[in-house]
Amino acid sequence: MSFNETLNRKAREIEEILREYLPEETGFQKTVIEAMNYSLLAGGKRLRPMLMKECYTLFGGNGNVIKPFMAAMEMIHTYSLVHDDLPAMDNDEYRRGRKTTHVVYGEAMGILAGDGLLNYAFETACKAFDEDLTNPAIPKALRLLAGKAGICGMIGGQTVDVQSEGQPLSREKLDFIYRLKTGALIEASMMIGAVLAGASEQEVQVMEKVAADVGLAFQIQDDILDVTSTVEVLGKPIHSDEKNHKTTYVTLEGLEKARKDVEEISGRALETLRGLPKRNEFLEELVNWLIYREK
Amino acid sequence: MSFNETLNRKAREIEEILREYLPEETGFQKTVIEAMNYSLLAGGKRLRPMLMKECYTLFGGNGNVIKPFMAAMEMIHTYSLVHDDLPAMDNDEYRRGRKTTHVVYGEAMGILAGDGLLNYAFETACKAFDEDLTNPAIPKALRLLAGKAGICGMIGGQTVDVQSEGQPLSREKLDFIYRLKTGALIEASMMIGAVLAGASEQEVQVMEKVAADVGLAFQIQDDILDVTSTVEVLGKPIHSDEKNHKTTYVTLEGLEKARKDVEEISGRALETLRGLPKRNEFLEELVNWLIYREK
Repeated sequence: MSFNETLNRKAREIEEILREYLPEETGFQKTVIEAMNYSLLAGGKRLRPMLMKECYTLFGGNGNVIKPFMAAMEMIHTYSLVHDDLPAMDNDEYRRGRKTTHVVYGEAMGILAGDGLLNYAFETACKAFDEDLTNPAIPKALRLLAGKAGICGMIGGQTVDVQSEGQPLSREKLDFIYRLKTGALIEASMMIGAVLAGASEQEVQVMEKVAADVGLAFQIQDDILDVTSTVEVLGKPIHSDEKNHKTTYVTLEGLEKARKDVEEISGRALETLRGLPKRNEFLEELVNWLIYREK
Repeated sequence: MSFNETLNRKAREIEEILREYLPEETGFQKTVIEAMNYSLLAGGKRLRPMLMKECYTLFGGNGNVIKPFMAAMEMIHTYSLVHDDLPAMDNDEYRRGRKTTHVVYGEAMGILAGDGLLNYAFETACKAFDEDLTNPAIPKALRLLAGKAGICGMIGGQTVDVQSEGQPLSREKLDFIYRLKTGALIEASMMIGAVLAGASEQEVQVMEKVAADVGLAFQIQDDILDVTSTVEVLGKPIHSDEKNHKTTYVTLEGLEKARKDVEEISGRALETLRGLPKRNEFLEELVNWLIYREK
């Protein structure tokens, strides 16, 4: 099976897991649940749960305890997009070719569906306790999830991004935004996979470093594609950063250095993965693909 | 010490606990943290953590494991107010005599501060694992917190409330909104107190019923006060339900029946509390005060 076939199969498997944990569309509050499911099933690479699962496998995990965390991670990623698209934030009407949640369901329901997804993420992650009520890895994974999604993680990055709109950014602030807004959930994903598989503290720390590099390289590649790709390939508007006067890695460092740095940062992540006593070939291919993707 | 003195002392103790768990206002993301703390320290009765603590004491609890859950509960209650006040929701500019969060910090920051508080609530509740990583009561309490705050709890009630705006409500739908929007967090508070103190399943179920009655009576009393009180006593506009064409318990059932039902429902709750093998006199006084309060 080719890498792309495997990738698609694994993404479908993740959608199956997501469907297992979707809330039932019933009761007087049906609409908010529909809005939550609408945004959850809008497609996407399912990158974070995929990285989580592959790291779990890498460290020998083979149980079901990972599933609620995979679903929870995608819910958190999704809620952040739903709120990010709101009129008071980025005011986006389309995402992945579909109308955004607040456009379909109204702004109040967009806010509530986002809240619902964030809350439901923790409700879902807690289902891991069904597998084992006293496994200390579950509280550790929960704390990672909450910490990396919060004000010292994704929300923190999102805040600075919103506040910096229309202003020139220092490299220091840009790094902060990339590390928190994009990096934090990737770090949490890879670390949670390792933690739930029973990896040592030290192994989890190694995964955090690898994930930070993956997140950063992923984001820089995003900036590069915005400049070098075409609408047809990317499936979304190009040169959007320039139009929005957005400081990016490319505007700060130039295209050539951006390319060189992606190479270096991702090379470092891959080298670490390849040097581990246990290997997961698909994970290595995935990281490579993420960084050298064309869309 | 009079009941009121004790009440104020206990509210101050809860503020102390809240301050212990407040996020530090530092880093590039300082503003969102300021906005979170601004809304958390806006005063209020601190009713939910107080009920939680008193139920914990009732069932013999005397440790620190309750503290992070008390703080988390108030964070969830607070985030729901912050999002509720947003322009796309109730569009309120003042709450408890202070400007609402989005008025002070802007709408985007209001959304993010609410998200931050909800997420931080779970981050904070997870700190209970510092006390004991394998105490099975903590996962149970976490699941109660997430479940009662979510789409089958508070968010569910909030959704139906928002969707019903300007429309006449059936008694069935009104009950649903009251039970979920107001009742669910009160249920969670009293149940979590019991669970963390080691109460039995059956005792926790009894507390759920008591709390449901307390929540309902509390909300009906709110409707009554809106009709019968004065601006001076209440400290907020009266007849606001009428002005907003809002269906309430009073508009549906009339003032007299509303009063009779508050009496009956709260009487039932108090009778159950007084019939328990263990008693907490302050909790009984608190429930009585909540329902017969004048503001």
